Amino acid sequence: MKSLTEHLWFEIPARRGFVNLTDTVAGLVQRSGVQEGLCLVNAMHITASVFINDDEAGLHRDLDRWLERLAPHEPLSAYDHNRTGEDNADAHLKRTVMGREVVVAVTAGRLDLGPWEQIFYGEFDGRRRKRVLVKILGE
Amino acid sequence: MKSLTEHLWFEIPARRGFVNLTDTVAGLVQRSGVQEGLCLVNAMHITASVFINDDEAGLHRDLDRWLERLAPHEPLSAYDHNRTGEDNADAHLKRTVMGREVVVAVTAGRLDLGPWEQIFYGEFDGRRRKRVLVKILGE
Amino acid sequence: MKSLTEHLWFEIPARRGFVNLTDTVAGLVQRSGVQEGLCLVNAMHITASVFINDDEAGLHRDLDRWLERLAPHEPLSAYDHNRTGEDNADAHLKRTVMGREVVVAVTAGRLDLGPWEQIFYGEFDGRRRKRVLVKILGE
Repeated sequence: MKSLTEHLWFEIPARRGFVNLTDTVAGLVQRSGVQEGLCLVNAMHITASVFINDDEAGLHRDLDRWLERLAPHEPLSAYDHNRTGEDNADAHLKRTVMGREVVVAVTAGRLDLGPWEQIFYGEFDGRRRKRVLVKILGE
Repeated sequence: MKSLTEHLWFEIPARRGFVNLTDTVAGLVQRSGVQEGLCLVNAMHITASVFINDDEAGLHRDLDRWLERLAPHEPLSAYDHNRTGEDNADAHLKRTVMGREVVVAVTAGRLDLGPWEQIFYGEFDGRRRKRVLVKILGE
Repeated sequence: MKSLTEHLWFEIPARRGFVNLTDTVAGLVQRSGVQEGLCLVNAMHITASVFINDDEAGLHRDLDRWLERLAPHEPLSAYDHNRTGEDNADAHLKRTVMGREVVVAVTAGRLDLGPWEQIFYGEFDGRRRKRVLVKILGE
């Protein structure tokens, strides 16, 4: 069995933003030497997400507006969590909708993705350094 | 280590629909010969989902109505994504709620599912051929 | 390849509640002897969830209120599923938002979690015995 572990670092300059990780993860799969296996990609922070969707700017604006409607940032006082001195309760909820992680198959040495599947980091409480974990396991 | 990779094809005649995959996936686990391992089942399209829930028609109607309330199909103009000529922005959002994939344990050669757990394909933009990936890994 | 399978039992005295599983799962990883691998933790019931978020009581109240807003328990008659004699349709929907499972990397013999990541059991239809499955796979 082979395995590869890598941490990717992000510092998104705004509160929210999406970053396409697909090429980076594909390069790690190649480096791992794994031919048949699984690739886990997860946010290591609870106000961020890793998800798979389309790389289309309009859809990303739709996602952002929709998440803000489902879990508005303001009023801050609407959330008990913000009484701890934080202002990011909404980010915990938005990340819950988007998910923490994806697991992608590795087949014949490559990420086994559908034609439009792209892996994204989703930030909901940015402006500080945060990590994503990539773990590849197989043979 | 053993592995099995299979693509399942679907063409749902309506825009939305659910298909129970449990027996198909269970058969693939048997064919893989894996006794202890993990089974990944994921949609390969970003307007479809693989999820686990109850095989009960009333619940499926509830899920459909609820998703339509959280992310309505119309008005199409409410979504920037639809300016690209698509009409499926809502399908990207509905699939986000339902999830892209499930990972199920394989124990003693069988899917290790709870008493009511059933694996479903969820279609939110049908009337064309789409794929699900099953990847089984273990020993 | 090594593997470990364990079922954890819960009986939450109220309809809804969250239980921190992190130490229990960490202990199982140690017992498994796996150094590099993957750890799947999933609810075996379709009205319960396993998720990763903050161990902060205010956030847990926020999550509970938010889920009740997205998928209210009452009126029971709003859900077709409840015509089967159940009163838990909302629990199926709440668990859908929160997710069924998490997959966590095992690195150097330990759960590879971020600084604030904690693994929770989320109950949405309690007052009876229910199970969580932990499956650890690797070398």
